[in-house]
Amino acid sequence: MADIQVRRNKKVVQKCYLSGPVKESDLEVVVSDTVQLALPPGSTAVIVKNLYISIDPWNFSMKKDASTSPLSVITGYGVAKVVVSRYKDFRAGDLVLGITGWEEYSLISDPNSLIKINYPDLPLSYYTGILGMPGMTAYIGFYEICAPKKGEFVFVSAASGAVGQLVGQFAKLTGCYVVGSASSDEKVNLLKEKFGFDDAFNYKKEQDLNAALERCFPEGIDIYFENVGGAMLDAVLLNMRHSGRIAACGMISQYNLEKHEGVHNLLNIITRKLRMEGFFVSDHFSKYRKFEEMVARHLKSGKITYVEDIAEGLESAPTAFVGLFKGKNVGKQLVVIARE
Amino acid sequence: MADIQVRRNKKVVQKCYLSGPVKESDLEVVVSDTVQLALPPGSTAVIVKNLYISIDPWNFSMKKDASTSPLSVITGYGVAKVVVSRYKDFRAGDLVLGITGWEEYSLISDPNSLIKINYPDLPLSYYTGILGMPGMTAYIGFYEICAPKKGEFVFVSAASGAVGQLVGQFAKLTGCYVVGSASSDEKVNLLKEKFGFDDAFNYKKEQDLNAALERCFPEGIDIYFENVGGAMLDAVLLNMRHSGRIAACGMISQYNLEKHEGVHNLLNIITRKLRMEGFFVSDHFSKYRKFEEMVARHLKSGKITYVEDIAEGLESAPTAFVGLFKGKNVGKQLVVIARE
Repeated sequence: MADIQVRRNKKVVQKCYLSGPVKESDLEVVVSDTVQLALPPGSTAVIVKNLYISIDPWNFSMKKDASTSPLSVITGYGVAKVVVSRYKDFRAGDLVLGITGWEEYSLISDPNSLIKINYPDLPLSYYTGILGMPGMTAYIGFYEICAPKKGEFVFVSAASGAVGQLVGQFAKLTGCYVVGSASSDEKVNLLKEKFGFDDAFNYKKEQDLNAALERCFPEGIDIYFENVGGAMLDAVLLNMRHSGRIAACGMISQYNLEKHEGVHNLLNIITRKLRMEGFFVSDHFSKYRKFEEMVARHLKSGKITYVEDIAEGLESAPTAFVGLFKGKNVGKQLVVIARE
Repeated sequence: MADIQVRRNKKVVQKCYLSGPVKESDLEVVVSDTVQLALPPGSTAVIVKNLYISIDPWNFSMKKDASTSPLSVITGYGVAKVVVSRYKDFRAGDLVLGITGWEEYSLISDPNSLIKINYPDLPLSYYTGILGMPGMTAYIGFYEICAPKKGEFVFVSAASGAVGQLVGQFAKLTGCYVVGSASSDEKVNLLKEKFGFDDAFNYKKEQDLNAALERCFPEGIDIYFENVGGAMLDAVLLNMRHSGRIAACGMISQYNLEKHEGVHNLLNIITRKLRMEGFFVSDHFSKYRKFEEMVARHLKSGKITYVEDIAEGLESAPTAFVGLFKGKNVGKQLVVIARE
């Protein structure tokens, strides 16, 4: 067959079952045997060349599962170019978004899960973040789970991250008052100066999270977009208003703990009739095109802005990943494997 | 005026601001000055003679509020007879349900909050429980908050209480599998033999709540009707199925603690896309007649049954109230002040 090509395939693998906080040495960049860029007749798979991979906290939490084989390639969302296709909806050259591997080339055996990119005129890397699953997560979590109303008070933790920065901007577009927390003064400035948050604070500099929230929300919080968990959630529960909503999106402060911190103020869910709700963005894929169109339009008009933290090359993935849990990234963390 | 009568008015008062677990000596039965059974012209109030009062855990939690004066009468839901009315919708002799005082006679300055009793042929005391706010709480919490489907797995804690016993019977009427927990073997028997729960366990005899739930729900829990909080909630979170719902109704295990227990497994709200939601039954009063008709019909046909724990006389109220936190009551705890 004319399209048979052979390539090496560099990849990031997990070296062992993880116990305790993830370390760079838990991951390894290896060059596997060569990979054939070909598919047998009758296959409905595609082979993609990975361009950008999204570095997300849950890449780790997935890997805590003992059912995952050691030395398997890390998986997660990425932007890729189709190089070989036996699937009706794709052909070579198509740009797609979906679950792929942290490697140069991936075989996607269920191409139905891939989404074709509609706005290649915007930076392709945006599809790992603001136009990809983090963006969809912000969109579903804020609009569907929180059901925001104009004038409401919104708090976003880990607010400079891929999801948080967009939640804050959605809140402003809705006419809400929005405050974010982040892990450095640099990020706090970014929230206020670049993303238009009404206020922001560096939680590492606050002695008392409850006092910080009381200062930022003298009238209380209607909507909390939860990205961190633990002590922050406990403090937020003390400051929620009646009928408040908490979109439970992530709890990054807890993933690396052997035993998760106790949350003590759940009685407020009853006394203030709160709703706390988790969600899977994958249940809402039918709304992707609506989301993509809205965000692309606002990006082009400048009503929404976006900050990325781009690491170069697969070799940088372990450092980028571990840095995520230390709050080292400023904006959406991603790794570029190839630009085209 | 012909209807001026003078009566003594025995009442239960709170002697001091509460700190720590409530004790019988925190409450006192006193005979106040006499009360005039008359209202001035222009008033829109009513005076009621209290018949049955509902003993609820939240009578206590309300009184923790420092804005409540010491020595004020305890308030809560009760069944009463109107003796003097200046309100258009009521006249002397009407039987009503609503917020009243733990005393022989009460002045109700906002009679709009009272509900007229439609089924005086059923035991009047039922209107403190299964036909009153505990019943409405079960109805709203189960049908509105939990949105149950036939075949789902339902767990109810404090299941022999006023709310729990009805939630279990609603679950059976819906075609669910329902398990309850309670604090004694006697109550466990009641759940299985009288209320038709599929299974039940005495949580005091379980070394490991998680193991008890795994045993009762090998396929997991879709709906948890939360009445206790703390360690039970933590164990339930480990056993919830994807898209499960938790109606946060009460956390009786926590009310008497200076610092509430930490709940460690909230990450499962995210990883299993759970919804946990509090509610105020008072937001749903518009549905009261629909609820009353349904439950009265099922009571008359024998499809729903009910167990009360009736204490005689206002003097018994402090003991009955404190007993609630020790799980001493079997069925709905109430106090009869007068039978007519």
